[in-house]
Amino acid sequence: MPDVAAYAIDSPTGRYERTTITRREPGPTEVYLDIAYAGICHSDIHTARGEWGKVNYPFVGGHEIAGVVSKVGSDVTKFKVGDRVGVGCFVDSCGECEMCLADEEQFCTSRPGTIATYASIGRDGEPTHGGYSQGITVEEDYLMRVPDETSLEHAAPLMCAGITLYSPLKRFGAGPGKRVGILGMGGLGHMGVQISAALGAETIVLSRTLAKRDDGLKLGADDYVSTEDRDAMKKLRGTFDLIISTISDGVDLDATLRLIKPHGTLVNLGLPEHPSTINLGSLIGGGKVLAGSQIGGIKETQEMLEFCAEHGINPVIEIIDADEINEAYDNVVASKVRYRYVIDAATIGD
Amino acid sequence: MPDVAAYAIDSPTGRYERTTITRREPGPTEVYLDIAYAGICHSDIHTARGEWGKVNYPFVGGHEIAGVVSKVGSDVTKFKVGDRVGVGCFVDSCGECEMCLADEEQFCTSRPGTIATYASIGRDGEPTHGGYSQGITVEEDYLMRVPDETSLEHAAPLMCAGITLYSPLKRFGAGPGKRVGILGMGGLGHMGVQISAALGAETIVLSRTLAKRDDGLKLGADDYVSTEDRDAMKKLRGTFDLIISTISDGVDLDATLRLIKPHGTLVNLGLPEHPSTINLGSLIGGGKVLAGSQIGGIKETQEMLEFCAEHGINPVIEIIDADEINEAYDNVVASKVRYRYVIDAATIGD
Repeated sequence: MPDVAAYAIDSPTGRYERTTITRREPGPTEVYLDIAYAGICHSDIHTARGEWGKVNYPFVGGHEIAGVVSKVGSDVTKFKVGDRVGVGCFVDSCGECEMCLADEEQFCTSRPGTIATYASIGRDGEPTHGGYSQGITVEEDYLMRVPDETSLEHAAPLMCAGITLYSPLKRFGAGPGKRVGILGMGGLGHMGVQISAALGAETIVLSRTLAKRDDGLKLGADDYVSTEDRDAMKKLRGTFDLIISTISDGVDLDATLRLIKPHGTLVNLGLPEHPSTINLGSLIGGGKVLAGSQIGGIKETQEMLEFCAEHGINPVIEIIDADEINEAYDNVVASKVRYRYVIDAATIGD
Repeated sequence: MPDVAAYAIDSPTGRYERTTITRREPGPTEVYLDIAYAGICHSDIHTARGEWGKVNYPFVGGHEIAGVVSKVGSDVTKFKVGDRVGVGCFVDSCGECEMCLADEEQFCTSRPGTIATYASIGRDGEPTHGGYSQGITVEEDYLMRVPDETSLEHAAPLMCAGITLYSPLKRFGAGPGKRVGILGMGGLGHMGVQISAALGAETIVLSRTLAKRDDGLKLGADDYVSTEDRDAMKKLRGTFDLIISTISDGVDLDATLRLIKPHGTLVNLGLPEHPSTINLGSLIGGGKVLAGSQIGGIKETQEMLEFCAEHGINPVIEIIDADEINEAYDNVVASKVRYRYVIDAATIGD
């Protein structure tokens, strides 16, 4: 397989520049896809900037990938040339451990464990590189099929942001008769609103300001409340079955747990740099649950794609050229994106 | 109803002394029972000493009560004179809210909410007093029936320590094919071992020292491991489906969560005086759950009593006279009790 154009960053403080990386020829059970679009996830930024630990450079981000199969290995049975496919946060795992067998490959317990789409070492011993590139080689078992109803540019952010919200909403019972809060209205939050509403739950956005209120209501929220409105917060105490926090830092766990019913659940998706504090009485008082969540397995991701297609759920995106990645990163950090940047991979080789 | 003898404490630093309290005549749906035994729970001590907030004195502790019905109101249908019964941590609730209707009266959401067996204000406007007394008047709906197989002295601690372990073990799926850790081998932990083993789970006690190892194995544990044994702890990483922490303070949440499998659960029962710290990555990494838990509803408490009777589960108790309460408190705080003090209520009037 040829060298392909990609955008890489050289150091935690560097800037993305155009470069060339080598993708391997697809093995017997592998597929090569021409990447059409790659979403920009906040995790890309944390990783690229070394905020989540050391990373090898050059680093190529992107784990929200959608494209078209252009080459298949000899034993590939699930996909053929021309198929519209997606790749999410990981590209490989052992396939044999308890977690892989339970379709939770993201928690693979073998060594080296789940192989991430970028910043990992693949089975071939080479560093993995993400979707800010023209193409990628992936084992067929780690590819998703993009439903006909979903465009590739919209499919890309579903591969991480979509499944990250879908998985906990399903796991913790969002549905008719339940009140769900979505804390934070960004790239993750705006997917949570749509999925929660489509699941039939009463859905309330909790956000510091009301700046994105109209968007929230348009996407299906039943209400949109400022977390700084003390009276409103007081009225909401003990009324949520489930709250999903998409805030990456600074969540007041105790205050948020007060909004939740006995036996209700607060799911935290954000990974702050420093330890958080919690009064354990906030959990004991109502037998409440604080859970973490992280993407989902391949099977559940495929299910999510079909759910979104069926319910007409799409991320709200802004398509950018590859040479705008650096600016886009700054905008994501400054919460200026509404709601997801997607790189048009056709501009990577320009 | 007459005045009855009781043991009360007058201040956070006071000592229990013999006194007299007034119990009301049973109303139409109430039952009066002669108390036979009352367990000493660590919560009694925290409450008596004002460690969980201000409390009105004189304070009469005791929410692990077993006795015999000696008087019933005109409309009582569930109990008759001579019945062996138990009272747990609460004696009343609204009966009409979502939680009460779901048999989770301990989470009653109406005002004033669940009325605790002690240190609450009852519907009659009078302070509630606990089981360190000769008798108590209770609504029949808040009484449990003690199975024939269970002696009253053993039934008493089941009313709090028993249900406190049974409820989360059932809720979070302890059973065949699951590995359950019981962190801490005290009044709560020694019940957890027995219930977890009877539910069919592989049960491992995690305790700082091995001092109570023989007891743990005798009560049904499959293994007993020191949390200070680094090698052993390393081997146990990622192997537990469920850990119940019975430690009241100083649990290392991150280290304990490392022992748990992806999608597994750490239930915390202890209420530390100060906020705890947690690295939210400890939950996100494996989609793990940190839950609080607190006793159970009346229906579940009755179910627990029957489960314990069926499986021959009894607390390990030491029966004391009422004038030994002060000494017993000191021993509980010093972790010297094995495993539950139970006051012989016949000695209260002496």
